[in-house]
Amino acid sequence: MAEIGERELARLEGIKRTVKGFLNLNPIQRGGILTPEARKAVGEWADGYSLCDFCDGVLESIKKPPIDEFVHETLPRFIDADEVRLTHGAREAKYMVMHAICKPGSTIVADSNAHYSTHVAAERNKLLIVEVENNNYPEYRVDVEKYAERIEEVKEKTGKPPSLAVITFPDGNYGNLPDAKRVGDICSEYGVPLLINAAYAIGRMPVSLRDLGADFVVGSGHKSMASSGPIGILGLRGDLSEQVLRKSSEYKNKEVEMLGCGPRGLPLITLMASFPAVYERVKHWEGEVENARFFIKKIEEINGIQQLGIKPTEHDLNFLETNVFYEISKKHKKGRFFLYRELKKRDIIGVKPGLTKNFKISTYEFNKDELKKIIDAFKEIAMLK
Amino acid sequence: MAEIGERELARLEGIKRTVKGFLNLNPIQRGGILTPEARKAVGEWADGYSLCDFCDGVLESIKKPPIDEFVHETLPRFIDADEVRLTHGAREAKYMVMHAICKPGSTIVADSNAHYSTHVAAERNKLLIVEVENNNYPEYRVDVEKYAERIEEVKEKTGKPPSLAVITFPDGNYGNLPDAKRVGDICSEYGVPLLINAAYAIGRMPVSLRDLGADFVVGSGHKSMASSGPIGILGLRGDLSEQVLRKSSEYKNKEVEMLGCGPRGLPLITLMASFPAVYERVKHWEGEVENARFFIKKIEEINGIQQLGIKPTEHDLNFLETNVFYEISKKHKKGRFFLYRELKKRDIIGVKPGLTKNFKISTYEFNKDELKKIIDAFKEIAMLK
Repeated sequence: MAEIGERELARLEGIKRTVKGFLNLNPIQRGGILTPEARKAVGEWADGYSLCDFCDGVLESIKKPPIDEFVHETLPRFIDADEVRLTHGAREAKYMVMHAICKPGSTIVADSNAHYSTHVAAERNKLLIVEVENNNYPEYRVDVEKYAERIEEVKEKTGKPPSLAVITFPDGNYGNLPDAKRVGDICSEYGVPLLINAAYAIGRMPVSLRDLGADFVVGSGHKSMASSGPIGILGLRGDLSEQVLRKSSEYKNKEVEMLGCGPRGLPLITLMASFPAVYERVKHWEGEVENARFFIKKIEEINGIQQLGIKPTEHDLNFLETNVFYEISKKHKKGRFFLYRELKKRDIIGVKPGLTKNFKISTYEFNKDELKKIIDAFKEIAMLK
Repeated sequence: MAEIGERELARLEGIKRTVKGFLNLNPIQRGGILTPEARKAVGEWADGYSLCDFCDGVLESIKKPPIDEFVHETLPRFIDADEVRLTHGAREAKYMVMHAICKPGSTIVADSNAHYSTHVAAERNKLLIVEVENNNYPEYRVDVEKYAERIEEVKEKTGKPPSLAVITFPDGNYGNLPDAKRVGDICSEYGVPLLINAAYAIGRMPVSLRDLGADFVVGSGHKSMASSGPIGILGLRGDLSEQVLRKSSEYKNKEVEMLGCGPRGLPLITLMASFPAVYERVKHWEGEVENARFFIKKIEEINGIQQLGIKPTEHDLNFLETNVFYEISKKHKKGRFFLYRELKKRDIIGVKPGLTKNFKISTYEFNKDELKKIIDAFKEIAMLK
């Protein structure tokens, strides 16, 4: 152990989150805000391994707190899955499925709007990805019919169907919601397992693994289920579940892909404590879509701002092309940082410092007054030219 | 989405931790109790992905809060490692190293006191384990010289040296601290990479990866670093680090084995906030060993109780053989649950309900008065016969 200086240690003391009180447009921040119930639970359960007080060897079988019922009954009903497992996040769930059912060297098919973590999870598993392309600017729509073509291609090229198909529902750039059910039908026809990445769906909108006709779906607690990170869920359906949930040959009650136990800590408590509110909020998803459309409509009244992606938007996450801000940045004394600063002056954050040409935002759970405040800010800033 | 009943939802409301105010002997609970500083930070940072407010694409490069300095300077100095990475826990770190450097089908060598998660991580990687045995009852001491024999055996049998050696320092049953440095020397001689599982060491006692002569060391935030679960650390040293930390071919700033970013949430904030206190407490490790020895000495004055494992103990985690309680349980009207109940009456928990013959306990961070209270309780309960 080398000496660590006092000043270095002091920098770890009393670290404050500086964004409190701001309206935060960053899509990764909106769906993970804790409910008051979860906030209460945090004080109660923050210590180390607190939820393991009454464990008999398997995290997901703990009765007190009621993890067993939550994982084996509540969550499967919530997403119409046969089984649900807790993971450290959506990416860890994707990795787990790929690791369990795809042979290294095999090829998978994924939409070109897939999150980078789908690619990295595949790379970690030594899988190749063939992409189903989108139609590019300005819509970036994935043509789901092309899943059939790509599957055929992989069969022809490798002699085998893809070991997995992945569809991102919605993607994290444009908030496009592809017809995942149609992908499910195509994959069923070809006997290709399908995984739906619903990190921005589960906890925001109703999602039914059964209705979408897929084998696996992954969700994110910190992204969309009002939970402290890191936590995610994996929903499973059908015969392939067994492979993913296989038990250790030596430790009979431990699941191999879970390394025994998954997220053994506070994030799970927040997922549980927030769940009644999350269950309720997904029923009001249409209101969120209306708010997003209202926001986009108002914002597009500014010359030089338009929403990219499918229109009208079907999700709270949206990608904006903002030429008007880019033009201002060319002449403004703060240069490309002007937008970040101007927004911050107006108590708005979540657009990355330096971006002016385009960026993504989310309107999730903003009320009308907050939306209006953001719209007014955009309008004022656009007048700076 | 199927309907979820009101009563089922109500069971998730206001879930309380029922063990508050009790002296908790469970070894997994003692080293993860948050510091007051961490407790404050929890309120500040509990939302979803809060620490990603100012992220440029890599969790461990975030400057605000000061994750970058913490991961790249502070932690490496703390454990004398070249590099440190954050993981979801010690098991996930073990899995990551095995995945990066061991070919499926290869053999690793591990001590027979290894945690089950070492076995499950190996199984998930399709590795075989050859065990270095301990000397059984009552000491369970691992003869570290036998690492050489086992390595030779693997070479003879498979034509190759083991792809990794693992030593558990200390193990989680007896708290035995093997001579890891000697294992490091043997492994160096044979050119076998060594991983030290220090989940019960880092954060409790000084640990130096360099001095132990190993390539990798894993630690646990929730077990021993006063952090909310799940979080762990991986320390790396030497040439093999590159393989573990390799970047994605497609996403140049993302590490493949990390799936891009590791523990993106509150547990990391608690690890950082507690760190100054943890850095201080490891300097007083000798006091903890003294307390453990004091406790064992007093407890062994009771006829029919003895500590198993290496004596005198060198760790706060100890395994007790308690024949006296077993004998009482045979006649007691509560049967084998009497001990749990009698301890609970005296505000003591952490011995699993139903155990009477033997169990493990930890005395970590109990003060003398608390130790005396526990000793008196054991003495009183032993009189029930």
